[in-house]
Amino acid sequence: MAGYVQDDIPADELDRQRALYGPFTDALRALVDAGIRTEVDDDEVRAVQAEVEALTERLRRRQLEGAYGVRFSNDGQGRAWGNAVVGLRNAVAPPLVVEQEDDSGRVWADFHLGAAYEGPPTLVHGGVSALILDQVLGQAAGAGKRPGMTGTLTLVYRQGTPLGPLRAEAWIERTEGIKTWARGHILGPDGVTVEAEGVFILPRWARKALAERDSADRAPRFFE
Amino acid sequence: MAGYVQDDIPADELDRQRALYGPFTDALRALVDAGIRTEVDDDEVRAVQAEVEALTERLRRRQLEGAYGVRFSNDGQGRAWGNAVVGLRNAVAPPLVVEQEDDSGRVWADFHLGAAYEGPPTLVHGGVSALILDQVLGQAAGAGKRPGMTGTLTLVYRQGTPLGPLRAEAWIERTEGIKTWARGHILGPDGVTVEAEGVFILPRWARKALAERDSADRAPRFFE
Repeated sequence: MAGYVQDDIPADELDRQRALYGPFTDALRALVDAGIRTEVDDDEVRAVQAEVEALTERLRRRQLEGAYGVRFSNDGQGRAWGNAVVGLRNAVAPPLVVEQEDDSGRVWADFHLGAAYEGPPTLVHGGVSALILDQVLGQAAGAGKRPGMTGTLTLVYRQGTPLGPLRAEAWIERTEGIKTWARGHILGPDGVTVEAEGVFILPRWARKALAERDSADRAPRFFE
Repeated sequence: MAGYVQDDIPADELDRQRALYGPFTDALRALVDAGIRTEVDDDEVRAVQAEVEALTERLRRRQLEGAYGVRFSNDGQGRAWGNAVVGLRNAVAPPLVVEQEDDSGRVWADFHLGAAYEGPPTLVHGGVSALILDQVLGQAAGAGKRPGMTGTLTLVYRQGTPLGPLRAEAWIERTEGIKTWARGHILGPDGVTVEAEGVFILPRWARKALAERDSADRAPRFFE
């Protein structure tokens, strides 16, 4: 409950913010990638470092005290802009843009993973696959009006996941009261690389709110 | 096999590189954090973005074609500097510094997770816990001379993991041929937050090399 913020920000203001922060965070992601791969000489690395530190100081002149949290507009649309997988403002996130067609709970994302997500050479870190599938399975549960926090998550690694273009898919298997079972996988050029199944549990504070929304037949979308 | 590189870089040269890239990547991590939390006005965000893009161009004047890969020095010490959890040069990594006392396979890490690792408000993203535990369990297997790629990984989420100071521990449960079973957990201020168990499988190309090393009684350390 702590940190979920309902704000009054109107749609056109949100569009403005997206247009501002989207490219800004993409620029940070490219810098992170260059930081891993650069072979420029030491003096240049130190010079760039000094400039990076100066930019951080400028950004910190006014900043949130803590992390971004999760925010909701008046229409119930959630903004998880600090989220480690989908966050518009988080350069750690690839990011994934998770799509859904309807409220059936089936979701997918097409995305690209570069050097920052490496584990074994040229392959995606097994834990990054887990990170992505946790988010996507959780969003499947949410897309089916059954959001929740991860209770358990199991991953089966069938083959290496190559860095590069990938797709993640997830869907709801079944629900029972406050629990939702979801499954999903990551697909690479050679088919399924990692499979996942998870149980997501509606947190206590959300149960009442969701009962009310279910009766109003309006599905809150928790992630953006 | 692709991407594991044996190079001849001497110890003092490696120290020099660590002293150069460690603080450089820390500076990038701070910039990522500031990027999530900044509240400076739009013009300033755009101005910083332009400078970030210019720095990326400077770094890219000379860079690796692909990702960092995993490199070994003459003494068998592995350098996974691009690794998404422990990479010295990877601003996506917190980073973790994974420690071990001996070759028993028990490892641990004390680390701090900030805004970039957020899932539910003020809590670590469930998938980030999975990412970290995949790495640490895999290193337990490696520390016990039984490195491997993740076969399966199961996580049980007991309570929310608060952003801030945390500890991860992992150990080997048992080994059978090419498989190693490892367990571990993340500890927060209120005890165990996430538990993990995984099976790690020695990749084909490593089996012969490891048989030789086992007989020489010298344990390769795969991660740094």
